[in-house]
Amino acid sequence: MTDSHPGPVSPTTEALGTLRPLPLDAVRLEPGGLLGAWQRRNAAATIPYCVDQMSATGTLENLRRATGQSDRKYAGMWFRDSDIYKTLEAAAWQLAHGDDPGLRDFLDTTASLLAKAQQDDGYLNSYFTVVHPEKRWRELDWSHELYCAGHLVQAAVAAARTDASAELMTVARRFADLIVERFGPDGTDGVCGHPEIETALVELYRATGHRPYLDTARRFLDLRGRGLLGEGRFGAAYHQDHVPVREAEEVAGHAVRQLYLLAGMVDVAVETRDTALLDAAKRLWDSAFRTKTYLTGAHGSRHRDEAYGDPYELPPDRAYAETCASIASFHWSWRMLLATGERRYADEMERVLHNAIAAGIAADGRHFFYSNPLHLRTGHDGSDEDAPSQRLSWYSCPCCPPNLARLMASLHGYLATADDDGLRVHLYGAGILRSPVPDGEAEVTTRTAYPWDGRIELTVTATTARPWTLALRIPGWCGRFTVEVDGTTVAGDAEDGYLRLTRSWDTPTVIVLDLDMPARLVSAHPRVDAVRGCVALTRGPLVYCLEQADLPDGTVLEDVRLDASAPVRAVERADLPDFPVALAAGGTVDRSPSPEPYRDHAAAEDAAEPLPLTAVPYFLWANRTPGPMRVWIPLAATG
Amino acid sequence: MTDSHPGPVSPTTEALGTLRPLPLDAVRLEPGGLLGAWQRRNAAATIPYCVDQMSATGTLENLRRATGQSDRKYAGMWFRDSDIYKTLEAAAWQLAHGDDPGLRDFLDTTASLLAKAQQDDGYLNSYFTVVHPEKRWRELDWSHELYCAGHLVQAAVAAARTDASAELMTVARRFADLIVERFGPDGTDGVCGHPEIETALVELYRATGHRPYLDTARRFLDLRGRGLLGEGRFGAAYHQDHVPVREAEEVAGHAVRQLYLLAGMVDVAVETRDTALLDAAKRLWDSAFRTKTYLTGAHGSRHRDEAYGDPYELPPDRAYAETCASIASFHWSWRMLLATGERRYADEMERVLHNAIAAGIAADGRHFFYSNPLHLRTGHDGSDEDAPSQRLSWYSCPCCPPNLARLMASLHGYLATADDDGLRVHLYGAGILRSPVPDGEAEVTTRTAYPWDGRIELTVTATTARPWTLALRIPGWCGRFTVEVDGTTVAGDAEDGYLRLTRSWDTPTVIVLDLDMPARLVSAHPRVDAVRGCVALTRGPLVYCLEQADLPDGTVLEDVRLDASAPVRAVERADLPDFPVALAAGGTVDRSPSPEPYRDHAAAEDAAEPLPLTAVPYFLWANRTPGPMRVWIPLAATG
Repeated sequence: MTDSHPGPVSPTTEALGTLRPLPLDAVRLEPGGLLGAWQRRNAAATIPYCVDQMSATGTLENLRRATGQSDRKYAGMWFRDSDIYKTLEAAAWQLAHGDDPGLRDFLDTTASLLAKAQQDDGYLNSYFTVVHPEKRWRELDWSHELYCAGHLVQAAVAAARTDASAELMTVARRFADLIVERFGPDGTDGVCGHPEIETALVELYRATGHRPYLDTARRFLDLRGRGLLGEGRFGAAYHQDHVPVREAEEVAGHAVRQLYLLAGMVDVAVETRDTALLDAAKRLWDSAFRTKTYLTGAHGSRHRDEAYGDPYELPPDRAYAETCASIASFHWSWRMLLATGERRYADEMERVLHNAIAAGIAADGRHFFYSNPLHLRTGHDGSDEDAPSQRLSWYSCPCCPPNLARLMASLHGYLATADDDGLRVHLYGAGILRSPVPDGEAEVTTRTAYPWDGRIELTVTATTARPWTLALRIPGWCGRFTVEVDGTTVAGDAEDGYLRLTRSWDTPTVIVLDLDMPARLVSAHPRVDAVRGCVALTRGPLVYCLEQADLPDGTVLEDVRLDASAPVRAVERADLPDFPVALAAGGTVDRSPSPEPYRDHAAAEDAAEPLPLTAVPYFLWANRTPGPMRVWIPLAATG
Repeated sequence: MTDSHPGPVSPTTEALGTLRPLPLDAVRLEPGGLLGAWQRRNAAATIPYCVDQMSATGTLENLRRATGQSDRKYAGMWFRDSDIYKTLEAAAWQLAHGDDPGLRDFLDTTASLLAKAQQDDGYLNSYFTVVHPEKRWRELDWSHELYCAGHLVQAAVAAARTDASAELMTVARRFADLIVERFGPDGTDGVCGHPEIETALVELYRATGHRPYLDTARRFLDLRGRGLLGEGRFGAAYHQDHVPVREAEEVAGHAVRQLYLLAGMVDVAVETRDTALLDAAKRLWDSAFRTKTYLTGAHGSRHRDEAYGDPYELPPDRAYAETCASIASFHWSWRMLLATGERRYADEMERVLHNAIAAGIAADGRHFFYSNPLHLRTGHDGSDEDAPSQRLSWYSCPCCPPNLARLMASLHGYLATADDDGLRVHLYGAGILRSPVPDGEAEVTTRTAYPWDGRIELTVTATTARPWTLALRIPGWCGRFTVEVDGTTVAGDAEDGYLRLTRSWDTPTVIVLDLDMPARLVSAHPRVDAVRGCVALTRGPLVYCLEQADLPDGTVLEDVRLDASAPVRAVERADLPDFPVALAAGGTVDRSPSPEPYRDHAAAEDAAEPLPLTAVPYFLWANRTPGPMRVWIPLAATG
């Protein structure tokens, strides 16, 4: 095998950390499995759609305007170039799956256009070239110049790793070199209001070995929290300039900015072996996932400034839960996993991927949610792009669709890692992977209907007889599991969350891991006022929800209760073919609620009649008739 | 007596409606009572402070710039003139309480300045004169030109009714005439993104008898919902342009805009005897107060667009609950009360006044809340003007402080009404009022410690022996009351919410109304997810809250529960002199909550130890050390 195609995040050999990503071309997801189906849909629908949108929305035309080939007015928001870069990155990862003349043409044409639009000194940004040349580098708090540059770099690194384009790397390095010259160790002080450049420069360092990129990334981190960005409309915390990154005690401000910054923190910590910086990231991870994360793995409680709220401020109806924040959270946890080897980071990747991220995209691959609430109320005015009742075909700020495209195209890169002991599998999807192991190479073929079923069959073989360890993640949600080796049940020790099987694998061996996957009733911390007296239904990694489509006509979703004393069963329903596993639960409904908004507590009794309930996977909601939905279901009074 | 000083809203004799406001100079609040104390503080602190701020913040300087007397850059937001007008209105109402050379000087000087800043054609707006003259009338969706004009008119009407200034009326009429010419029945189609001009023009019609003002106001109403304002950033509902006002089924969009518009709707309906329009207002009132109003009487659930949310979307922590919206709600309900005579409107006035409005101003009269949440969380970052932890001395958009000033200065105008049967008292405050009654005049002296105590003693006398009816409001919150006439208990019929005493009052008669005022535990409608499993404590018209200052050190407010089975007692506490009546309740606290954000429902049990609780009136919160506060208190598990 070759490691010429390292994954989306590939720490250098000198880096801190225990786990190593597998090369991207070492993993192939089968189209039948859920992850493989997502990747296939991404290739067939989402990527070509995003490519088309770059023309249809005038986004590429902005670049042409910057080259002088067009005289059209600049279209859209001032950071539109980043949409192009994310689409290019998706195209680059996708080309590693197999050639595609259309995508290659998009990549080559756009790379040439970028080279033409690039200024002589390396600067590249269509908005600031066309609309406000006098403001270049002058308003970093809102300009997104370095943010856009970061996405250019990420696209170039992807294209280099997949041999999809060399020209893109030339363009990106010219711009990166200008950034190093201007803002690097010998440059002026400045940071971008929207992080992204930090993690991008570390990846560029990894791809090129050029140390100034890493040093500049670190500088961008260490200059934060010194007031360079000012208060702005939403305060310094909005762009994480309220406190030095090493001193921060909790995540704050614009969620996507915070999370991209954290990914960059881990990247710099790992490459500079800066354990204090890594400790800061760990502390923030604990804070974020204890007090500011939705059950779906989503982040961001406030629409006003797309921001985190106070601790435990997690309203399901006004969840902002931006799709990009979920993707950023996935990126951050992946880096934490590589650095520490701790299961909880993989658990979090699984949760956010199967719920908050997957919900961002429609079954057709061409409609998207920007915000991902956990409750759409009866009577909701869903006409506003801010909180629409169904996925939209595009947004005035279309950051999420191409972000989904680039993640899905590289998804197979996040399934497993190699380390000195052997191979670890973190995410389960049907497919084949190859991995370096001590003195040889292993191949693992996975057959599973996960997450619909907890049975995972892995056929393992290796080119060496030397023993090595296959470590399989036992998800935190799983209370009981069994494992068989070639038909014989073995005792499994999974104390740290990984079941380890150490042996010689030189003859093909069949492992069957069976994760018990009952439906569960989950409560939130009592400080989460917004869902007090409610439970959510989950099964395996999936969060479920009630949708109006599954209620009898005339039933108001907000008048429905769940009977926690009734059993909840996983069911396959012939009449719901799009939901491989639904949940059947017992409930009640109050068909004549009082009109009074407030009343004496002693008088407050609901009339309830029985109502059987059907819950469907949250990530698949809003693929039928648009209508109310809720994850957190009020409990029926018991007694 | 004279009726030369009609109240803030004075329908003409031709108008629809059953109740008539008393002249402003017919009512005097005693400084000892709560309403009188508020009014006195307003005179001593808030009005002079607002007057000072008009200079300190450069707001008056903007006007000087418009006259050419200054060359300073325009300061602040583009609708700053409205702050001046509201302060002028407050000064005008205040001058009716007694002369004040400082206020008179402010009024005269500013009126002259306005006359100078006014353009030859009558146009008056410092921003559009100084900064964007080319945009005059061109961007009505955001310009606030007519909104500012409306507040000028309101100030002029107040000054005319109190004989405080004639010049202001001259200025206002010149501008109003220009508005009629441009937008009236013979003018072009246009409406303002921020309503206010509608109600103002009706008041101007009432003050002048000039019919085109009324016709133009009606036109502004009827042109809404036709797309004249466009979608803007937040959609057409934001500025109530999504549906014709007569067809609207629920309140929507920016709360202050919606409520000012509704006040204007009632004004136009009443003056044009348009019962269909009044019916629309009634329908919207029912919708608003059933599904979109906080327990404090506040409106507006969303910070993003200062807007109403979906029905029952009433988060206490992210309540926007703008002070101006509460004031607007008070204005709207007053108009509904005059038009219909129904008690519920007076109930609502009482509730919003004693809770949401009163909370907007600090005990010192010089600090203000813009938003009025019902829960300030532990760990809240209160440094942002958007949701500060304590009242601020001013705001970048300082609409609320002078709005409070103008309301408080005219507060006595809202206490009682005259009608063909006699006199009705709606709000209880210590003081004296005179009222026309059939064939004579009545005088009522009220002694009461209301709302701290439910005992109201009224000494009534009249200049005529002809019988008339004294109607006393029995608040909706009151389940039991007694009434004595000259020491003898009489049977009281209050079927429609008013206790009616009909007799000859030619000799002084003492009425003692005793409203039973127990502490109550209140539940919200079960569709209000945000406070499920919680109760609020109320007593009389007052909502109470828990403040951190009353908890033992180290107690996290969010870990406190209320024990609904324990009695709640009204107490006077020597150690809490600023709270005449506090409430003592039983509760528990969980001192070791789980760190896990989510857990199996079956495992979710709180450890609880007993904790006595003290609740204080919501309107007085945040007058001690800033800290967490909550109105809705989670219930302890009963067992």
